[in-house]
Amino acid sequence: MNIYTTEKSQQYLTRVKSFIDQHILPIEADILAENRRLNHSSDWTQWQLSQQIEALKAQAKADGLWNLFLPDATLAQGLTCVEYACLAEEMGRSILAPEIFNCNAPDTGNMEVLYHFGNEQQKAQWLSPLLSGDIRSVFAMTEPDVASSDATNMQATIIEDGDDVIVNGRKWWSTGLGHPNCQVMIFMGLSHPDAAKHQRHSMVLVPLDTPGVNITRMLTAYGDYDAPYGHGEMDLVNVRVPKGNVIMGLGKGFEIAQGRLGPGRIHHCMRAIGAAERALSLAIKRGQSRVAFSQPIIKLGGNLERIAQARIAIEQARLLTLNAAWKIDNLGVKHAMTDISAIKVAVPNMLTQVVDMAIQLYGGAGMNHDTPLAGFATMARSLRLADGPDEVHMAMVSRLELAKYK
Amino acid sequence: MNIYTTEKSQQYLTRVKSFIDQHILPIEADILAENRRLNHSSDWTQWQLSQQIEALKAQAKADGLWNLFLPDATLAQGLTCVEYACLAEEMGRSILAPEIFNCNAPDTGNMEVLYHFGNEQQKAQWLSPLLSGDIRSVFAMTEPDVASSDATNMQATIIEDGDDVIVNGRKWWSTGLGHPNCQVMIFMGLSHPDAAKHQRHSMVLVPLDTPGVNITRMLTAYGDYDAPYGHGEMDLVNVRVPKGNVIMGLGKGFEIAQGRLGPGRIHHCMRAIGAAERALSLAIKRGQSRVAFSQPIIKLGGNLERIAQARIAIEQARLLTLNAAWKIDNLGVKHAMTDISAIKVAVPNMLTQVVDMAIQLYGGAGMNHDTPLAGFATMARSLRLADGPDEVHMAMVSRLELAKYK
Amino acid sequence: MNIYTTEKSQQYLTRVKSFIDQHILPIEADILAENRRLNHSSDWTQWQLSQQIEALKAQAKADGLWNLFLPDATLAQGLTCVEYACLAEEMGRSILAPEIFNCNAPDTGNMEVLYHFGNEQQKAQWLSPLLSGDIRSVFAMTEPDVASSDATNMQATIIEDGDDVIVNGRKWWSTGLGHPNCQVMIFMGLSHPDAAKHQRHSMVLVPLDTPGVNITRMLTAYGDYDAPYGHGEMDLVNVRVPKGNVIMGLGKGFEIAQGRLGPGRIHHCMRAIGAAERALSLAIKRGQSRVAFSQPIIKLGGNLERIAQARIAIEQARLLTLNAAWKIDNLGVKHAMTDISAIKVAVPNMLTQVVDMAIQLYGGAGMNHDTPLAGFATMARSLRLADGPDEVHMAMVSRLELAKYK
Amino acid sequence: MNIYTTEKSQQYLTRVKSFIDQHILPIEADILAENRRLNHSSDWTQWQLSQQIEALKAQAKADGLWNLFLPDATLAQGLTCVEYACLAEEMGRSILAPEIFNCNAPDTGNMEVLYHFGNEQQKAQWLSPLLSGDIRSVFAMTEPDVASSDATNMQATIIEDGDDVIVNGRKWWSTGLGHPNCQVMIFMGLSHPDAAKHQRHSMVLVPLDTPGVNITRMLTAYGDYDAPYGHGEMDLVNVRVPKGNVIMGLGKGFEIAQGRLGPGRIHHCMRAIGAAERALSLAIKRGQSRVAFSQPIIKLGGNLERIAQARIAIEQARLLTLNAAWKIDNLGVKHAMTDISAIKVAVPNMLTQVVDMAIQLYGGAGMNHDTPLAGFATMARSLRLADGPDEVHMAMVSRLELAKYK
Repeated sequence: MNIYTTEKSQQYLTRVKSFIDQHILPIEADILAENRRLNHSSDWTQWQLSQQIEALKAQAKADGLWNLFLPDATLAQGLTCVEYACLAEEMGRSILAPEIFNCNAPDTGNMEVLYHFGNEQQKAQWLSPLLSGDIRSVFAMTEPDVASSDATNMQATIIEDGDDVIVNGRKWWSTGLGHPNCQVMIFMGLSHPDAAKHQRHSMVLVPLDTPGVNITRMLTAYGDYDAPYGHGEMDLVNVRVPKGNVIMGLGKGFEIAQGRLGPGRIHHCMRAIGAAERALSLAIKRGQSRVAFSQPIIKLGGNLERIAQARIAIEQARLLTLNAAWKIDNLGVKHAMTDISAIKVAVPNMLTQVVDMAIQLYGGAGMNHDTPLAGFATMARSLRLADGPDEVHMAMVSRLELAKYK
Repeated sequence: MNIYTTEKSQQYLTRVKSFIDQHILPIEADILAENRRLNHSSDWTQWQLSQQIEALKAQAKADGLWNLFLPDATLAQGLTCVEYACLAEEMGRSILAPEIFNCNAPDTGNMEVLYHFGNEQQKAQWLSPLLSGDIRSVFAMTEPDVASSDATNMQATIIEDGDDVIVNGRKWWSTGLGHPNCQVMIFMGLSHPDAAKHQRHSMVLVPLDTPGVNITRMLTAYGDYDAPYGHGEMDLVNVRVPKGNVIMGLGKGFEIAQGRLGPGRIHHCMRAIGAAERALSLAIKRGQSRVAFSQPIIKLGGNLERIAQARIAIEQARLLTLNAAWKIDNLGVKHAMTDISAIKVAVPNMLTQVVDMAIQLYGGAGMNHDTPLAGFATMARSLRLADGPDEVHMAMVSRLELAKYK
Repeated sequence: MNIYTTEKSQQYLTRVKSFIDQHILPIEADILAENRRLNHSSDWTQWQLSQQIEALKAQAKADGLWNLFLPDATLAQGLTCVEYACLAEEMGRSILAPEIFNCNAPDTGNMEVLYHFGNEQQKAQWLSPLLSGDIRSVFAMTEPDVASSDATNMQATIIEDGDDVIVNGRKWWSTGLGHPNCQVMIFMGLSHPDAAKHQRHSMVLVPLDTPGVNITRMLTAYGDYDAPYGHGEMDLVNVRVPKGNVIMGLGKGFEIAQGRLGPGRIHHCMRAIGAAERALSLAIKRGQSRVAFSQPIIKLGGNLERIAQARIAIEQARLLTLNAAWKIDNLGVKHAMTDISAIKVAVPNMLTQVVDMAIQLYGGAGMNHDTPLAGFATMARSLRLADGPDEVHMAMVSRLELAKYK
Repeated sequence: MNIYTTEKSQQYLTRVKSFIDQHILPIEADILAENRRLNHSSDWTQWQLSQQIEALKAQAKADGLWNLFLPDATLAQGLTCVEYACLAEEMGRSILAPEIFNCNAPDTGNMEVLYHFGNEQQKAQWLSPLLSGDIRSVFAMTEPDVASSDATNMQATIIEDGDDVIVNGRKWWSTGLGHPNCQVMIFMGLSHPDAAKHQRHSMVLVPLDTPGVNITRMLTAYGDYDAPYGHGEMDLVNVRVPKGNVIMGLGKGFEIAQGRLGPGRIHHCMRAIGAAERALSLAIKRGQSRVAFSQPIIKLGGNLERIAQARIAIEQARLLTLNAAWKIDNLGVKHAMTDISAIKVAVPNMLTQVVDMAIQLYGGAGMNHDTPLAGFATMARSLRLADGPDEVHMAMVSRLELAKYK
């Protein structure tokens, strides 16, 4: 319990925690093993969904633990950013949980874009099936041929042509592109190369079955295809979609991107904190149960200090993130810019350290797929790059800091 | 502004900040230089007080910015722990400020002990002049001959003898012992060697002019005598004081110590955060104003990343400390044990890093006495040892963490 | 060039470097992609060898760049430990190279065991085909059910039964067990549970096709099966092999293990240094060729400082390892115990840092299989656990350090 | 013993070590306490020399352990850079030792300048009394008003005027300026502001008693005046010295500076390594002899791991420095540029860590003047700034690294 907790969030927290403890964790290893069997190949067109996960999704939906991330009291439960944050942490304990509660990235961010910036037709066509969990989606931004840490580098094009726009370009690290239910992407590209820097780009909805969308491969992250989601690479060649698929209007890409980022980073970071709590817990249990040199290994060398440092780092990371969420709710995203960049740096690095410690305590068992640790490690590594590398966010923090002195 | 702020603390914060900005910072360098002139010798009996500081104390007292640390609405302003915390941060910006507001350690801790545990006579005799700022005091705990990180090691003795107790033993790092106005110490010693571990020690008030109190020398911390306070070493040989000087009763030493610690650590840590803010600010200003290799040095190498890391670390440290204070206020010290040890580890280490960065940016000027940086560095170093080294607090955090699994 | 270089090692270095540059690096990505195609499944019984690698092995053998690790002038080129060290570094630049030069772990260590401790029949039967590169081998030591960082924990048994021994137990992380050519393992187990601590275990050669050897699965390391080698798990149930398969005699397991360790760690560490050099080189080239925020990314933030830190760390790691090798050659393994443990800690941690920096500079491309970086990262992670985790080696170093004061 | 040792260096090492162990260490604390008594004031004009040190100097001179740093077989013992390096390490164990063997900075560097670049008259007038230990000297380079990390920033001027040059400018951190025997400075200033960047500055010998040389104060480093040496600040106002005092000729300042730097950094770094060895040794002895929580404190928490990390870091730092020295001797300074900058970064940071660990183990006793630790800590802090801050040297290393790819 802490100062950020509300009664409402506390109630949902109890229910989410109970669902995860009762329904997910006991069969988590089974589901992950089944997933490896079903999806052992790099050929994503053969990937299949786990029916156990589908069943758990139906149950979560029936229990009203569904779309909790969406700050809408009708379509969802109307939780604030800070209220949802503690639920996101809880979901982060299991790699499987976010999907089961329909709170998984990148769908959550895409749903938020459609919710905040989509028109009625776009909402009917894409937001509804996403909210119901029937389809999955992709956010196509990163490009292989340019340093995408500078988003203004993006070279893919979105060109008006009568009532349509024509989309061309190469994207990669499009997470979820291999998912059997993935049907649509939000594609960001250059529409007005001569406009002011942050008015050059647009976002357009592109159904995956549009002619000219060529998925070329799925990428591994540290050897893992992350099936059945996958991180896809694709070429779009003269892909024609109606202008009505453009979100908010041409040239609004950066405006939308800004709006998408704040809560999304809170979610990512809180999930990472949940993962860190799980890793710490696993480390302690393992360290207490295994014996070497006549001692439980938790008592050897600097292990207890590392446990303490992990606890201290997690607490700081959580407070930093909750405070950023509180600022978003109470002061607005524009007053939380330092905070949002700060958590993007601090939290994945904290997770990296905590998971590394846990793996080191586990020994070989920590590196293989018998525990969630290797998955968390890869997640931590990805998060230090995804959505802007640490360095870009440090640059943002220092820029805002220096601006105080002008 | 943050979630922990109350209207009352905000009002005091504005006043304290204004006092520091208007009255202290403009003459801080002058006062420190005067202090070096007045107190250049290692012979503490020659040390003198700065009349500029005495004048500022009178002014702060007149302005009602006095004893803000004390949670009593009559004797002081009745601020909660979390309300005072942000004022302590503000005071931490200048090494001079805590004294000027009569909020300096170890007097604050000693006043709290007397306030919470002293009897009426003890309060009349010692608390009153301390609250008025007329005398200074010492907390005599650490001993040169044993590892004092384990407080149960303490060997100094407090032996009943009729209506008196007789005190013997050697203490050091008794901060403030060289101060011209220092008149009394709270002395901790062994009274019941055969009792249960935490009922063996007692605390007794010993006036410095009691026969048998022999101050042997002042110690340097990194070469600095910290005049006119000083870190003293002393031998007590058959020092006789009335039993009425024992606080709470014999055997209550650890009970008192526990009560003293929580708020005191909040104060120390918040002052350290204020020091870190000052150091960061100095670093940025210096880095923007000096040029090397055709660039302001703030733009060279990894300097901007270090600025960002400092900002991120400070924010985390502040939230961790404020949250610990909030827990003390709302849940009680017993529910904040992890937090109180966590800040004791995290905050001084953060300050160490931030100050080191600032000094590195400053070059030679950062090491000498022209800026507060070297003083902050020494303070950070001391804080990692004082009141229990990092390692003891990490051991506490890990012990509490493992206890969750039993 | 440095003080450790001999003319002989310099000549071989030139040839090995030239072979790698001309024959391996240009097709490295092709071979790795082919390997992913051939061995995309987790079913190791389907794994196949790359014919490109087989061809390169033949060429290396023909060129006399073969078995360079073996300190024998007849069977190999008679290079000293320090002479081979710089070749191992060179080979470490490509994950493929050690196999191509028949210098891959764990075969090198197994060949050394047979070379130093095997009898004539064991050499004829197993050392010869290993030296010719016709078969591969496994070292079966780590067990899933005990903390194997303390080797005396090993529970698998080797029991005399007439002219045979009977082997029982479960092993995992047996690297190479999935390789199509893997035919034999050196199995370590408990033979004399009541003997002195380091005389309880034995090593025995067990052909993989012996009845009772059941390979249960291959393990992933961070999601990677490391095909066609694999890290295997197996159950041995009443596996009967002739006593003649015992190496050196029963109870000699630890003695052999000690002898195996020194040079093996040099090899591992020098390969890791080669990997670090490759990673640094990739980072610089990438950083110079990509542009963000109007600058080559190498010039942004703290990147150049990280390049410098990588260079400094690599140089220190190399000198530490070469010096350990020099001590093994000139003073003997027993006088290099601190050094051998020191490199085991320092070098994989250095590699971890350098590769992490390179990946961070690369962005998403650094995490997937288009570069060797993710492979190096997994290798670094494994090396911090394999052959004793960091913590065990730090314990060794501190134990030897404290012993100086007795 | 290591590969860099020669028979000659080994012999001198034995003698130096024996001298320090027998004659210096037993009275080191006494001498330091005497020094604090003699030189307790900030008024450097009152500073006095310890007669104990003067006696030890005479003895070292008589024993032929004198000027060992100088690579001249007639004036000294003709030791190479790498041969002297291990002696410098040995001397680094005691803050007092370098002076006693006439191997103290900045005199060593100044003597090298005169030896390599001075003319006969300059040698007769200044090198001789420096070599005999009769006078002390200063190197006046750093300026308070500019970022001196960029040496081309220097603003002090050296202007030709007939047969004289006229020197103007403000310098600080001129180490040794407070020493009673200090008689001369090597002053670097701008003589040709319009010349090519590295031909603008000159070095000139300025006797301290020349009219216009005004010493304004001594600076503290972390509160320590470092008496009787002192770090001085001075104003030179129209100081006139004969042109014959210019070293090598006007415009040669940078050329001389380059030549001065290589060996000087080796000496500094090796002394720092000696200090680290001493600190490690003190830490272990303290940790073994003090008990807390029923254990020798060396066994608590992560202490043993920190001992191991210190050992590993020291070994790496020593090899890096010895290898740089070996390169200077065998390949020339120009081929050791990366190495010389690398040690400047690595070694003081290593010392910082090792000393910090030792102080943390010592508790309060580590911070005061009863042990050499606080002095080593201040030395480490200074070394990270002196002679170019870490950042400048990292920039050099990365520049040389990137140059490999052009």
